[in-house]
Amino acid sequence: MTEKPQLSPSQGIEGEKQYAEVTEKWFEYPIVVHPHHTDYAGVVWHGVYLTWMEEARIECLRQLGIDYAQLVALGYELPVIEVNLRYHRPLRMGDRALVKTKVQDLDRVKIHWDYQITDWESNILYVSGRVTLVGIDREKGKIVRKLPTVLQEALVKL
Amino acid sequence: MTEKPQLSPSQGIEGEKQYAEVTEKWFEYPIVVHPHHTDYAGVVWHGVYLTWMEEARIECLRQLGIDYAQLVALGYELPVIEVNLRYHRPLRMGDRALVKTKVQDLDRVKIHWDYQITDWESNILYVSGRVTLVGIDREKGKIVRKLPTVLQEALVKL
Amino acid sequence: MTEKPQLSPSQGIEGEKQYAEVTEKWFEYPIVVHPHHTDYAGVVWHGVYLTWMEEARIECLRQLGIDYAQLVALGYELPVIEVNLRYHRPLRMGDRALVKTKVQDLDRVKIHWDYQITDWESNILYVSGRVTLVGIDREKGKIVRKLPTVLQEALVKL
Amino acid sequence: MTEKPQLSPSQGIEGEKQYAEVTEKWFEYPIVVHPHHTDYAGVVWHGVYLTWMEEARIECLRQLGIDYAQLVALGYELPVIEVNLRYHRPLRMGDRALVKTKVQDLDRVKIHWDYQITDWESNILYVSGRVTLVGIDREKGKIVRKLPTVLQEALVKL
Repeated sequence: MTEKPQLSPSQGIEGEKQYAEVTEKWFEYPIVVHPHHTDYAGVVWHGVYLTWMEEARIECLRQLGIDYAQLVALGYELPVIEVNLRYHRPLRMGDRALVKTKVQDLDRVKIHWDYQITDWESNILYVSGRVTLVGIDREKGKIVRKLPTVLQEALVKL
Repeated sequence: MTEKPQLSPSQGIEGEKQYAEVTEKWFEYPIVVHPHHTDYAGVVWHGVYLTWMEEARIECLRQLGIDYAQLVALGYELPVIEVNLRYHRPLRMGDRALVKTKVQDLDRVKIHWDYQITDWESNILYVSGRVTLVGIDREKGKIVRKLPTVLQEALVKL
Repeated sequence: MTEKPQLSPSQGIEGEKQYAEVTEKWFEYPIVVHPHHTDYAGVVWHGVYLTWMEEARIECLRQLGIDYAQLVALGYELPVIEVNLRYHRPLRMGDRALVKTKVQDLDRVKIHWDYQITDWESNILYVSGRVTLVGIDREKGKIVRKLPTVLQEALVKL
Repeated sequence: MTEKPQLSPSQGIEGEKQYAEVTEKWFEYPIVVHPHHTDYAGVVWHGVYLTWMEEARIECLRQLGIDYAQLVALGYELPVIEVNLRYHRPLRMGDRALVKTKVQDLDRVKIHWDYQITDWESNILYVSGRVTLVGIDREKGKIVRKLPTVLQEALVKL
């Protein structure tokens, strides 16, 4: 997250509100905070955001015509190889938020998904980050040097 | 994790083994991979590592004389404000591993915990990363500019 | 689940299809199986169903005008005191299902939620069960002998 | 849990302490409550107990010489087909407890594991219940009418 130095964590928690720079290119996945997402502090436990980020990726791919379960059946996987997250302010039980994601960079091997989790209405930023995946050939257990064409074409649309 | 550029993810999955640079300063927390940690790919789901990293932090603090539940009862919390993880190779069901952690930098406000998850015996590296926390005054909901003395003194020992 | 003896587990997994007896009284909560819900066997890990059942309860209450986070803010909680589940067949990655729930019995103290998790279209039964809650006064840490009126009235509608 | 009618839930939460009837036959698996196990109420979220119960089963089998990952590699699985749990009192952050389990009944097809989660020292009962598994042939996707001999022999020892 070195590309967003303006968001210091202390500002994120104590200071003035940050606003997410949303363009029309983000895929938006709505979530609601339920009791099982929270911890003793009454806020979302920090690892839970990764479940929502995964759901947003899968649903984004689905909208592009890629069914992830079918991709796996075809012999591919997209494991996560890197996670970089910044927590700006916590979501609380009952909160509704949007998990916004887009494919920022796409080289032959890695797929970088950028994320902003914001308030439904006001674009207040809760979490920002990047999750990086690679394509794997399940049988060989190796990174594929070229993503399946159908996936490559779908991701380029993003 | 810009400080470990030598570990490219493709090497991590396909290439030769990486070995963790372990010093005697790491706190070691042993874990075993059980079915509920795995996903459809037969490996540990990427978010699960954050549960083990938290457990290692808490147990490391306990060894230093800090009971986290008591710290919370005293009015403090240590929320996570940043997570940076690299996944070098996956752990599988039945695997035993060590979650190694140490406090790398300690400024007045942030606590940086470095991590290496390695094989029990061979120091093969599975996951590396850093988790950054801040101290919070629960009542005021604000970052404390100075950690509780008992915590500050315990962390310095690390 | 003594009231459903006709559903033997071996039938549930090997035998002919079971069909859920759905009435118009069930509240239906749609879910999708994502990678983080699955385990090494490629199916939903058995504890995950409890997260969906909780979400269905909360959303059912919301539709009745009860915001659970507000109920907690008012000083009440509804902890689970009993869970009885039968797993008839497993959900797999990418599956879409309906979590159907209704309040079956409501005495002064306990709230019994019945559940059937079925296929979206065909009513094939995946999981059935019952989750029992009580109302708790958060401050006193005691079971309330009478649920808050607003909750009592809402539940009676079910 | 019809066999334990003496433990009414209201007693469990408000009333006098219940004590687990522990015999030397229970396998004991120690656990510690960490932040990620808790929810907004400061207690362990009700579904988390299933992760500990699974861990206790796997470690119990390991002590008997059965490596569950190897059993899966041999083509078998032991999915859960029924869960019946009663929550007598909640565990809180920092608590240490014992997950006690034993195979209560063993017919040709089903394996019934009984559970009591108690305090480390005083046998105060937090959760009791039963989890029922069947043996599955992974390739055929069918229940095995006879468990693998090595497993059958190991379970009889319990």
